Amino acid sequence: MTGAPRTVGFVGLGAMGLPMAQALLAGGFTVHGWDLRADSREALAASGGLPAESAAAAATGADALVLMVVNAAQAETVLFDEGALAALPPQGIVVLMATCPPAAVVAIAERVQASGRGFVDAPVSGGVAGARAAKLTIMAAGSDDSVAAVRPLFAALGDRIFHVGPTPGQGATVKTANQLLCGVHIAVAAEAFALAEKIGVDRGLLLEVMSGSSAASWMLRDRGPRMLQEAPEVTSAIDIFVKDLGIVLQAGRDARAALPLTAAAHQLFLASSGRGDGTADDSQVIRSYRVLNGT
Amino acid sequence: MTGAPRTVGFVGLGAMGLPMAQALLAGGFTVHGWDLRADSREALAASGGLPAESAAAAATGADALVLMVVNAAQAETVLFDEGALAALPPQGIVVLMATCPPAAVVAIAERVQASGRGFVDAPVSGGVAGARAAKLTIMAAGSDDSVAAVRPLFAALGDRIFHVGPTPGQGATVKTANQLLCGVHIAVAAEAFALAEKIGVDRGLLLEVMSGSSAASWMLRDRGPRMLQEAPEVTSAIDIFVKDLGIVLQAGRDARAALPLTAAAHQLFLASSGRGDGTADDSQVIRSYRVLNGT
Repeated sequence: MTGAPRTVGFVGLGAMGLPMAQALLAGGFTVHGWDLRADSREALAASGGLPAESAAAAATGADALVLMVVNAAQAETVLFDEGALAALPPQGIVVLMATCPPAAVVAIAERVQASGRGFVDAPVSGGVAGARAAKLTIMAAGSDDSVAAVRPLFAALGDRIFHVGPTPGQGATVKTANQLLCGVHIAVAAEAFALAEKIGVDRGLLLEVMSGSSAASWMLRDRGPRMLQEAPEVTSAIDIFVKDLGIVLQAGRDARAALPLTAAAHQLFLASSGRGDGTADDSQVIRSYRVLNGT
Repeated sequence: MTGAPRTVGFVGLGAMGLPMAQALLAGGFTVHGWDLRADSREALAASGGLPAESAAAAATGADALVLMVVNAAQAETVLFDEGALAALPPQGIVVLMATCPPAAVVAIAERVQASGRGFVDAPVSGGVAGARAAKLTIMAAGSDDSVAAVRPLFAALGDRIFHVGPTPGQGATVKTANQLLCGVHIAVAAEAFALAEKIGVDRGLLLEVMSGSSAASWMLRDRGPRMLQEAPEVTSAIDIFVKDLGIVLQAGRDARAALPLTAAAHQLFLASSGRGDGTADDSQVIRSYRVLNGT
């Protein structure tokens, strides 16, 4: 790639990907987008984007190919089986923004770099709200040159852009540690409220006390109010943390690192999903405590 | 007690108790203080307080008797075995501010109230720094009358005063839930950093990313920087959370409530203490992960 990217191939126009592609359009980029779902491609077109016929078609002629797919396996399929890597120009850069285990990112990066293309590992945090507001946190890892080349693209997507290291996989590691804290913070907030429910204390007051004390967390303030509702609005589903804490545990297995709190928290999300609550708001992991404790 | 308390008996002049007694003196109260340690009594005298000869002597003539002892067993000894309750005037109010399991507070309250004295369950958070600055959070439970009577005393000690319920034990429950979150938040921050260390990523940058993202917690921001130091200043020791998470787990046992994350976090603090790190800063619970993971 020479100069800043102007044309972006974008694969994965889901809850996160579509608003990210729209933010790139708003930033002046030309976006060729691909998603298996026709309605997602139509939504891109309605925003001024160019729907492609395939992942390979989206990559054709692109300066950068952004992948916002569901997981590492989908990224591999798109790049290596569906021909997106081969279709990407020789100077193109693959930007993997999906949440994947670090070891999987390292493996994908090696295959991409072996083809001569650049690779930037750049997972995001901030959720759908952050994607819509173009206020994502971006944790980029890769060579100075490749990260510098795609920085204008990141600037259109987020407002906290970190170059966390020179090696692909380091971005995924930062994102993994981030999700570890997010998931455990939600589960432990549920544990605290569930204990208070069992003993008998005003939960609203408890939330007020803890939100302003050394017990505070971003997740307590955000999820706490919804944890006290019976069927709150879904801003992020239980199954997202079934997946994300699964990725954290995979990273632990790959690195041979013990993650006892993550493992315990994952069980609570898993059980919630198993009871049929997978699409409920993730604050409702508290239901796992309630069924456990009979409250 | 008639009118606002002017004379306070204060038992337990330790790291928290002494600055709290000094804050009461600064607030214009007369304080008769007792502690087993002579140097603590002398420190009180040097601040304008009146050292007593015993717990019972401190209670004699007091409008309110504040207990800032180590645990519930000490509170029982002071009140019932050492004669402080009997020495307290019939209109006096016992204010238990130590961190105790809710069920133990309920039992103490019943015995105090059976004697005709008032009882307020009023644990605090904010640590030694909060005590010195008279900026504690106070979680008071008790009848409207008794809490109203000691409110001027609370106003001299803290800046966030909550009347969390009418029944002694409810303050302890709020404090228990608070400590549950504090302890698990420290341990899980260590878990995240330990994973990052094992995989290999800049920990300072990781702290910066997570402190500003949805992964943030009060404890991450406060303990995180010390977690990255080898032998940081001790602001709160490992053994404090060995004790406090022990109280949380006791509350869970008393209420028959499962606390899987708290139980796992407690093991990590316990193991740290068992390796001889009990007096180290609580951020050093990360050493349990390092020895586990061989980093």
